[in-house]
Amino acid sequence: MAPSTWSQPTSHCAQGPQHVITASWLLTLTTPAPKEAWQWQQQQCDDGGSRIQALSCGGLRSRAAAGMAAPRRLKPLHRVAVSGGTHGNEMSGVYLVKHWLRDPTELRRGSFAATPFLSNLRAVEKCVRYVGRDLNRTFTAEFLSSAETEDEPYEVGRAREINQTYGPKGSAQAFDFMFDLHNTTANMGTCLIMDSEESLLPMHMCHYIQTHYTQSSCPIYLYKLPGEESYSIDSVAKTGLALELGPQPQGVLKANLFAEMRALMACALDFIELFNTGTVFPAFKTEAYKITGRVDYPRYPDGEISAMVHPKLQDKDFLPLNPEDPIFQPFSGEEILYEGDSTIYPAFINEAAYYEKKVAFVKMEKRTFSIPGLQRE
Amino acid sequence: MAPSTWSQPTSHCAQGPQHVITASWLLTLTTPAPKEAWQWQQQQCDDGGSRIQALSCGGLRSRAAAGMAAPRRLKPLHRVAVSGGTHGNEMSGVYLVKHWLRDPTELRRGSFAATPFLSNLRAVEKCVRYVGRDLNRTFTAEFLSSAETEDEPYEVGRAREINQTYGPKGSAQAFDFMFDLHNTTANMGTCLIMDSEESLLPMHMCHYIQTHYTQSSCPIYLYKLPGEESYSIDSVAKTGLALELGPQPQGVLKANLFAEMRALMACALDFIELFNTGTVFPAFKTEAYKITGRVDYPRYPDGEISAMVHPKLQDKDFLPLNPEDPIFQPFSGEEILYEGDSTIYPAFINEAAYYEKKVAFVKMEKRTFSIPGLQRE
Repeated sequence: MAPSTWSQPTSHCAQGPQHVITASWLLTLTTPAPKEAWQWQQQQCDDGGSRIQALSCGGLRSRAAAGMAAPRRLKPLHRVAVSGGTHGNEMSGVYLVKHWLRDPTELRRGSFAATPFLSNLRAVEKCVRYVGRDLNRTFTAEFLSSAETEDEPYEVGRAREINQTYGPKGSAQAFDFMFDLHNTTANMGTCLIMDSEESLLPMHMCHYIQTHYTQSSCPIYLYKLPGEESYSIDSVAKTGLALELGPQPQGVLKANLFAEMRALMACALDFIELFNTGTVFPAFKTEAYKITGRVDYPRYPDGEISAMVHPKLQDKDFLPLNPEDPIFQPFSGEEILYEGDSTIYPAFINEAAYYEKKVAFVKMEKRTFSIPGLQRE
Repeated sequence: MAPSTWSQPTSHCAQGPQHVITASWLLTLTTPAPKEAWQWQQQQCDDGGSRIQALSCGGLRSRAAAGMAAPRRLKPLHRVAVSGGTHGNEMSGVYLVKHWLRDPTELRRGSFAATPFLSNLRAVEKCVRYVGRDLNRTFTAEFLSSAETEDEPYEVGRAREINQTYGPKGSAQAFDFMFDLHNTTANMGTCLIMDSEESLLPMHMCHYIQTHYTQSSCPIYLYKLPGEESYSIDSVAKTGLALELGPQPQGVLKANLFAEMRALMACALDFIELFNTGTVFPAFKTEAYKITGRVDYPRYPDGEISAMVHPKLQDKDFLPLNPEDPIFQPFSGEEILYEGDSTIYPAFINEAAYYEKKVAFVKMEKRTFSIPGLQRE
């Protein structure tokens, strides 16, 4: 039987009946993967090779380059959560989770079933990012250990609730993994966000997604600055990953991004199932974007912004920005050039929610990381 | 001297020194108009013809078709207002008006100077559409004549203030004209919105813009349903026009749309100047889109939406939608087709602010109107 979508090689390699479910709804995807990509993967899988060989599709060369040390062993993941609506106006995650709360079939695999939940309930209800403060900056020790007060922002109490249900953060009782579903108004495509390259299992998950979800490039964005405490919702669980899909306006649900997020989640859950059932994931090398700083808008002395993101920078997330390239266009005319001394890679360019954070774009460097192999205990 | 942008023929025809200012900043536009369009207009203007001939550029054929009745006479416009931030998260108008409040040079013409103002101040401050209720649905007799109460929404009091300053609505003291600057998340391009085809001066203004602003098609959208009371902010003035530019996410300022709105405003102010200084605008025929109804999202019994705008309808504003064309994609798969019995033209497709109004898109019919000539008293 000739598989008709890109997801079939995954099902084929894994041979688990639960993957048939995954494959059937993926037929609704609007853009099938390039035929060549599938054929190549199928060839690898049909080659009579072991499960390890099958799963290293796309990573064979980097495996050799990364050396053949024994894979690191981690416990299987049994308790997995999926958060939507951490920002209540990022609609792909809000409506995916609402759909899964009605019908969770897609979140089930043989060894586990992911638990969907809406994280910022009041913000979802009002279709705003937050009602009191940004929930996704509230999972620090300071807030999570604070005593309840009458006038605290709604999100502080909600963060404690989430920490009780899916954590406590840093404890043995915490959920094994948490997905967090986001949208951005920036042109970031299907971006995978995690804290740092040191998180082994999410790095393997990202690599698996990049190899098997071939409709877009799925860049990896490492968000934690050195010495910074993890503040995001998925830090409550033992480990996690955020999906950041764009461009999509706040409060708008676009069918194409909804389908992409659904497919990425299916792929990520497939990875967990393979990990849980004993698949060995070899070492590999990968490129990822690591945050190095943030750039504010130019401003008048009274604090009001005095310039816009330059049309030549708009929508150029993850592309190189070189010294002397234009970055801003003042209302009064002219243009403002990038004054750095080396090439950077910007992201979150002109993100709606970052005006109040005084961030016109985030600066990143592109780096290559060697990731050790992985296997369950 | 060879003019270098599309706006120069306007300046050339009108020969007013104030147009030089307009033309100079238009040099910052990113996409010059097609050279052919300008050459054709210049030919008309340089032909030794009268001012009437020069200004009928692009409308000569329709003028003949519409007949040669004497133009209707209206009073010149001396008091003109420009509102930004009627919806506080529609950023092109917010930042254009903020810029003009710092430097109003661009709003000056020989016979008048337009007055910029931010209409929903609190919503602009919070970067939300409104804080209590939609300001742009609050300019009805019911709200404008209501007595102040302690618990009334902010926008009701603000509507009364605006009515006092720029109205009162329907009175001889009201401002002569009000522009209102909007953005939409829908793919509506540079859309010109007015109440009905019966408003003679705005119809001529739209025709002038369509003829002289040749970078996009500038469709005319007639928003008032039969028998409906005017509820929008520009109804406070004797007459008015809204500019609706998209797609732009709420809370995001895109340089290209900012430049387009600026250019449209310059063109519209040029029209008023020409009208005030005695230009005769001949009769013409024009196409416009007239609202016929609104379509809600499919919903579950509990009221939650159960489907998204179909990818084949997304971004197809102002294009024909035929019976049996797909319009929605349920979360559960399949598709929902348009069941009407004739072709319609949708607009505001998947507009963020209309989810709460239960509007997935607006239905329009495309009609041709014969507009009488116009001249100042």
